[in-house]
Amino acid sequence: MRQLIKNVHVLTIDDQMTEFPEGYVLIEEDTIQEIGAMDAKLPSADRVIDGKNGILIPGMINAHTHVGMIPFRSLGDDVPDRLRRFLFPLEQVMTKELAQASAEYAVAEMLLSGVTSFCDMYYFEDAIAESVEKMGARAILGETIIDMPTCDFATPEEALKWCETFIEKWQGHPLITPAIAPHATNTNTPEVLAQIVAIAQHYGSPITMHVAEMTYEMEEFAQRYQQTPIAFLNELGYFEQQFIIAHGIFTQASDFDLLQSKAQAVKVAHCIGANTKSAKGVAPVKDMLKNHWHVGLGTDGPSSGNTLDLFTQMRMFANFHKTHEHDRGLFPANEIVTLATKGGAQVLGLDHLVGSIEVGKKADLTLIETESVNMFPIFDAYSALVYSANASNVSDVWVNGCQLVKEKQLVAQQVSDLRQQLVENMTEFVKEAKRRSEEI
Amino acid sequence: MRQLIKNVHVLTIDDQMTEFPEGYVLIEEDTIQEIGAMDAKLPSADRVIDGKNGILIPGMINAHTHVGMIPFRSLGDDVPDRLRRFLFPLEQVMTKELAQASAEYAVAEMLLSGVTSFCDMYYFEDAIAESVEKMGARAILGETIIDMPTCDFATPEEALKWCETFIEKWQGHPLITPAIAPHATNTNTPEVLAQIVAIAQHYGSPITMHVAEMTYEMEEFAQRYQQTPIAFLNELGYFEQQFIIAHGIFTQASDFDLLQSKAQAVKVAHCIGANTKSAKGVAPVKDMLKNHWHVGLGTDGPSSGNTLDLFTQMRMFANFHKTHEHDRGLFPANEIVTLATKGGAQVLGLDHLVGSIEVGKKADLTLIETESVNMFPIFDAYSALVYSANASNVSDVWVNGCQLVKEKQLVAQQVSDLRQQLVENMTEFVKEAKRRSEEI
Repeated sequence: MRQLIKNVHVLTIDDQMTEFPEGYVLIEEDTIQEIGAMDAKLPSADRVIDGKNGILIPGMINAHTHVGMIPFRSLGDDVPDRLRRFLFPLEQVMTKELAQASAEYAVAEMLLSGVTSFCDMYYFEDAIAESVEKMGARAILGETIIDMPTCDFATPEEALKWCETFIEKWQGHPLITPAIAPHATNTNTPEVLAQIVAIAQHYGSPITMHVAEMTYEMEEFAQRYQQTPIAFLNELGYFEQQFIIAHGIFTQASDFDLLQSKAQAVKVAHCIGANTKSAKGVAPVKDMLKNHWHVGLGTDGPSSGNTLDLFTQMRMFANFHKTHEHDRGLFPANEIVTLATKGGAQVLGLDHLVGSIEVGKKADLTLIETESVNMFPIFDAYSALVYSANASNVSDVWVNGCQLVKEKQLVAQQVSDLRQQLVENMTEFVKEAKRRSEEI
Repeated sequence: MRQLIKNVHVLTIDDQMTEFPEGYVLIEEDTIQEIGAMDAKLPSADRVIDGKNGILIPGMINAHTHVGMIPFRSLGDDVPDRLRRFLFPLEQVMTKELAQASAEYAVAEMLLSGVTSFCDMYYFEDAIAESVEKMGARAILGETIIDMPTCDFATPEEALKWCETFIEKWQGHPLITPAIAPHATNTNTPEVLAQIVAIAQHYGSPITMHVAEMTYEMEEFAQRYQQTPIAFLNELGYFEQQFIIAHGIFTQASDFDLLQSKAQAVKVAHCIGANTKSAKGVAPVKDMLKNHWHVGLGTDGPSSGNTLDLFTQMRMFANFHKTHEHDRGLFPANEIVTLATKGGAQVLGLDHLVGSIEVGKKADLTLIETESVNMFPIFDAYSALVYSANASNVSDVWVNGCQLVKEKQLVAQQVSDLRQQLVENMTEFVKEAKRRSEEI
C-alpha cells in the first residue's frame, strides 16, 4: 500500500537537517519512498493523509524505560531512597499478567505521544514482547538480571539461563530485539556481569544497564575496586559490543579518556526528567557529545519519570543543560529534536533503519498538529517542538509503515479497555502499595 | 444560579490541606457555597456537572506574564541576549490592535490550561484590560514604564501620567486590578522609580517589576549604588505597599536580613521555566519561603517561557529545586500545587478572594480530567498534577462562578477565530521578525 502524507512541515533530521516547510512524504509498504515539497507534482497513492500544516518528524525514540511499571506511577514520588523502600519490595507482588497489562498500557501511552521505538528493562520480558508485538511498536526488550530473588526468577543464574531461550525465540523479529538487562553495576556480582557479556557476544544481542546513576554506587566502586563503574565494565568487555548505558549521571573525565578509542561504541540513554526529579544530578551530556559518544533521551519508568513522552524530556533537557552550563545558546532546539530521534536510533543501534526521514528508511513517523492553542506562532518548528509542544499535540503515528495512531486515538485499541485490563490485575498490588505508603 | 460539580477529587488547598477524594462543590452565583463528600446528601442545583473522577483544584494563578507577546513565540529562542537583540527592537512595531489580539489569545490559552488569574506587564494595557474583561479572566494589569520610547509612549513621564487615568478607569472592577509595571530596576531612572511609588501609594495600586533577574543588573547596582536592587527598592519605599517582584533570581542573603521585619510584604513571582531556559539560574525559593516571603509561580511571557500553563512550571519547579538542593524529599508535590494556587493568590494580594476552595471564596475552579492515558494510576492526586499532568488534561474552568472552559473548549469563543484575528494583525511584525532573524 502507498500512503501519502501531505501538507506537512517535514523535519527530516538527515545529515543536512533538510526541511520541507510545505512538504509531503510517500510511504510504500513499510518504507519511506519519496520526500518532497508540495509545489512538485504529488505522487499517486492508495491513501492520502492531509497533515493540515502539522510537523512531521521521525518517530521519537525512548532510549530507556520500564514498561511494566505503570502500576507504580504517582506512588511515593517524593520519598527518599524510593528504590529500596518502595520499588524493590513492591516488585515482589508483580505478576506476569500485571507486567503484561502494564506493558500494553505503556506502549499505548508512548505511541499516543509520538514514541515509535523504545528500549525496555523489566521482568517477564517474554510476555512483554508479546504485548509489544500486539501493539506494533519497535523495541529492544531486556530481561532484568539482579542478585536477589525477583518476581520472575529465584536466582540471577536461572534468569540468565532463561535469557538464552528468550533471545533465541525473538531474534530476527522485524520489530523486536531481545536483550539482556543487568539491573546495575552494584546489584550484580562481577561473575554474573562477566557471564552476561559472554552470552550477549555469543548471540550478538544488546545489553542495557543502569550505570553511574547512584552516589552509593560510585562510592562502592571507588572503595572496592578503586575505579569507576564504567572503567570496571570496560575491563569486562562491555564496550566490545552493543551496550546501552542508562543514566551515566556520574560519568567521570577519566571515563572519556579511557574510552577515547571506543567512543563510537559508547551509547547513553540520558534520562534528564527522572534524574532531576530524584535530585540525582545532570549527566555531562555536553562532554559526552564532545567525546563522540552517542546520546539519546529516555523517560525512565513511569514511576521515576512519570510521563513516557519525549516532549517532557526535550524541554527538561534544554532548561537543565543550558542552566548547568550557563549558556543560553547551548543545545539549540534542532539539536535537541535530533537527540530525541536520530540520537536515540544510534543508541539503540537502529539508525540504519529509523531515526530520520530518508528514502529507504522504515516509515516510523510522528505527526504533531499545530492547531492547538499552544502551537502558534511557529517561526521555528524545532523551537515549537521543544518549548511549546506537549504529548497531547501528537496526532498521527506510523511504525514500520503501519498507522497506529490516528487523530489522537489508537487505531486498534481503546485506552479505556487497556486501563480496565490493568485495573483487573492490580488488586493485590494496590493493597500492598497502600500498606507500604501508610508505613512511611 | 446554583451549580453543583460532583464526582470530583477536591483538593481544597485550605490551611489543613483538606481533601475530598470523592467530593462535590456547590457554587451559588460567583461564590463557593458548600464543599462535601459524595456520601452526604447532595444539595439541589440548577445545573449539575459530572466531574467523572477528575481532580478539582482552585483556579491556578500565573503570577507573571506578558499577554501581548504571543507574536514573539518560537522566535530566536536560543539566541543570547535576546531581550536587547530581539525583543526591544521588535516591540517598536507592536500596535495596540496586535497587543489586544495577542492578549485575547493568551488569556484563552491560559484559561484552557486552568489558569484563572494572572499578573501582566505590557503595553497598551487599557486595550488589554478590555480584552481580559471580554474573556472573563481575573487579572492584575500593569502598564510598562521604561526609560526609552516605546510602541505606546514617547517618554516614561508620559506613560506614568497616563497610568493615573488607567488606574482611575479600572479601579473597583470586580475582576481587573490596574497596576504600574516599571520594566526593571536598571531600565528606569531612580527619579521615575520614586514617582511610581508615590502614584501607587496614592491610588493603593500594586506595582510589579522585573527585579534581580539579570547578571548585568546585579553588576550595575553593585558598582553604582553598592547595594542590591532589592535594597535599593526598599529605600525607595517599594515594600511599603503591594509590590510583586518578578523573578528575584539573584536575591541575596543580605536581602533576607534587610527585609526581615517586612517579610509578609515581599511577594515573588518565580518563573522557573523562563529563568532556566535562558540559563539565568534558579531563584532561592527554599530560602524565600524559610524567610516567610510569599512565592507564586509565573510563566513569564510566551516568548520567554513559551507555554502559559502552570503544569510546565510545577514540573520544572520540582525537578530544579530538588536537584539544586540535592534533596528528593524537598518540595513534595502538595507544596508545589499550593504555590501554583494559594501561593499565587497571596502574591497577587487576592488570597481573601481566591487561591483555595473554601466556603465564601469566589468560585475560581479548575477541573483536570483523569481519563487520558497519562493520568493513571493516581495514588496521590498532587503527584499526578505535578509529575504526570499537562495543560491538555484541563477539562473545565470557572472564573467568578462563570464557566469559561467546558470539555476542553472555550465556552464563548473559538481558538481558530482568536488565531485568525491575531494573524490579521501580525503582517508587519512577521516581516520585521524575519528580517531580524536573517541578520542574526
